[in-house]
Amino acid sequence: MSRKPDFDGMACPLPLMDHDTIQLAHGAGGRMSADLLEKLILPRFSCEELNRLEDQAVLDLPAGKLAFSTDTFVVNPIFFPGGDIGDLAINGTVNDVAMSGAEVTALSVGFILEEGLPMADFHRILCSMEKSAATAGVRIVTGDTKVVGHGACDKIFINTSGLGVIPSHLNLDSRLIAPGDKILLSGTLADHGMAVMTARKELSFQAPIQSDSAALNGMIRSILDACPNVKALRDPTRGGVATTLNEFAAGSNTGIRLEDERIPVLSEVMGACEILGIDPLYVANEGKLIAVVPGQDAEAVLEIMRANELGREAVILGDVVAEHPGMVTLLTGLGSERIVDMPVGEQLPRIC
Amino acid sequence: MSRKPDFDGMACPLPLMDHDTIQLAHGAGGRMSADLLEKLILPRFSCEELNRLEDQAVLDLPAGKLAFSTDTFVVNPIFFPGGDIGDLAINGTVNDVAMSGAEVTALSVGFILEEGLPMADFHRILCSMEKSAATAGVRIVTGDTKVVGHGACDKIFINTSGLGVIPSHLNLDSRLIAPGDKILLSGTLADHGMAVMTARKELSFQAPIQSDSAALNGMIRSILDACPNVKALRDPTRGGVATTLNEFAAGSNTGIRLEDERIPVLSEVMGACEILGIDPLYVANEGKLIAVVPGQDAEAVLEIMRANELGREAVILGDVVAEHPGMVTLLTGLGSERIVDMPVGEQLPRIC
Repeated sequence: MSRKPDFDGMACPLPLMDHDTIQLAHGAGGRMSADLLEKLILPRFSCEELNRLEDQAVLDLPAGKLAFSTDTFVVNPIFFPGGDIGDLAINGTVNDVAMSGAEVTALSVGFILEEGLPMADFHRILCSMEKSAATAGVRIVTGDTKVVGHGACDKIFINTSGLGVIPSHLNLDSRLIAPGDKILLSGTLADHGMAVMTARKELSFQAPIQSDSAALNGMIRSILDACPNVKALRDPTRGGVATTLNEFAAGSNTGIRLEDERIPVLSEVMGACEILGIDPLYVANEGKLIAVVPGQDAEAVLEIMRANELGREAVILGDVVAEHPGMVTLLTGLGSERIVDMPVGEQLPRIC
Repeated sequence: MSRKPDFDGMACPLPLMDHDTIQLAHGAGGRMSADLLEKLILPRFSCEELNRLEDQAVLDLPAGKLAFSTDTFVVNPIFFPGGDIGDLAINGTVNDVAMSGAEVTALSVGFILEEGLPMADFHRILCSMEKSAATAGVRIVTGDTKVVGHGACDKIFINTSGLGVIPSHLNLDSRLIAPGDKILLSGTLADHGMAVMTARKELSFQAPIQSDSAALNGMIRSILDACPNVKALRDPTRGGVATTLNEFAAGSNTGIRLEDERIPVLSEVMGACEILGIDPLYVANEGKLIAVVPGQDAEAVLEIMRANELGREAVILGDVVAEHPGMVTLLTGLGSERIVDMPVGEQLPRIC
């Protein structure tokens, strides 16, 4: 129990528990489950809905379109530079809900814990989730904890599902993407994937690559308040920007043309990509968004992104074109144009 | 690939896939992920929201109170008499949402698959989920699939989260339970837990114990249409009836008194409980509900339960009393009264 979490200089001391590690009985629904819940989990996520400890939360929501999303997090290692599985689980689902234009309202959390997981590790993850939920302004209103025997899962897996209400004047729909639209990216590529990959391979760089794990709902609200005509928002996670843009091109039957020189990649990330032979266009990001906006709105949206702390490196990445419908291409500095295809196989397992 | 699923005589043939088992690349977000989704998953759950393949579903819901629940399923074995992890994942979350009085509207599904899981097993589980979702009248509107390496999880884990809208005239709240109320149980106890336990231990009985896994939203609708004054509904899953009733007693600061002779347990289930030294009051059920209703409504609700195929063995199990607040007791046939406590340790790991 030597490792103590420490966020922004604020200690988050481990409560006194009867066991130093997770036991099977912590998931059995009896007294030890109640103990884990009351001492470790509830103090981090306390809110009226959760504290009722019913099997479901009851929320008062206005009428309208509701966005609903789910994601399971199995990242390995569970702690990495710039984040951990806990903040990833909060930010990932906040982002998936927010990309619809919704105000993110509430999250559920489902834990699968491996027998023997150090209680201090679980607590550190819970503290990280508390902090990222507070930063994103969302509440965890319902949850579930299962424990499986040693060897039946790898330390901890977390599912989060999220809800949000979409303002009625918005109509984001990637099928509406049309030639003349611009593709914007809110910052540097491939930070999260390469942070996890280099942490896992124990590659030593002078400064470790930091994950970009962050909740983007604040930036999205600024963008949509100023430019409600945004066609589509998406966070390029698994499969990276290449996958997101291929899905946009296929879904809207348009072509997408990127310019190589505009792609922002940190030099240390590019260095790691080159060592590992990985194209940053295919690497997961966890705190970046792609926005597709009408051409006349592109500069305004770019300004708004850059005014946000999480969007300082935002760029206009390319154009939606009538040529090569369904395909994404990359214009190189030498003037040639190559196809950016969907990834075929496994690139980076358990990156989120 | 010799095992073929067969439901009600209807074959559910395995689509032609490039691989006989789950590969890491099926979870990487690229072409193989898309292949798994398009050939295996989407045909089972096809609906407008899911087919859009966005990172979130968008639902039109009326204003009002929304019930939101999550549950993760790690049952071992994944196939057992009377069900499998798939129908359990649907029915479990449908029930958790429905117990609030809500009309269950939509579910999310998050899969964690182990590399090497036979494709036929995954397909059989998907077919089972399709069937139980259709029976319950709910749609799966959003989902996520992760694959972890061989040995990093045990075959398949499933998270489901669910949403439903609560009619505005209902106000189920276990804190409202008061002396004079009656405790009703919709059928026999401990079927699910003992089905899984005996399947796991390979105990051979003449007839295998069948899980009671079932969606109870239809029965609940009938009950609430006739008796909107129901105080509380709960499905006694992990920890069994003893845990549910202890939570009710503690939350409402009332006493609960059960009568031993009224507890319905199938003879084969009681036999297995006796062999394994397990009290059926602590065993998980997956197709039963406890209803707490005002005394004057008890007979009417009992009639409605018994008129439903899933409630034929319903009983009035006991009374809410002013004595021993916060405690549950059991009156034996001999006239003595003993405390039914919360379970302390692990009784049946990975039962759901």
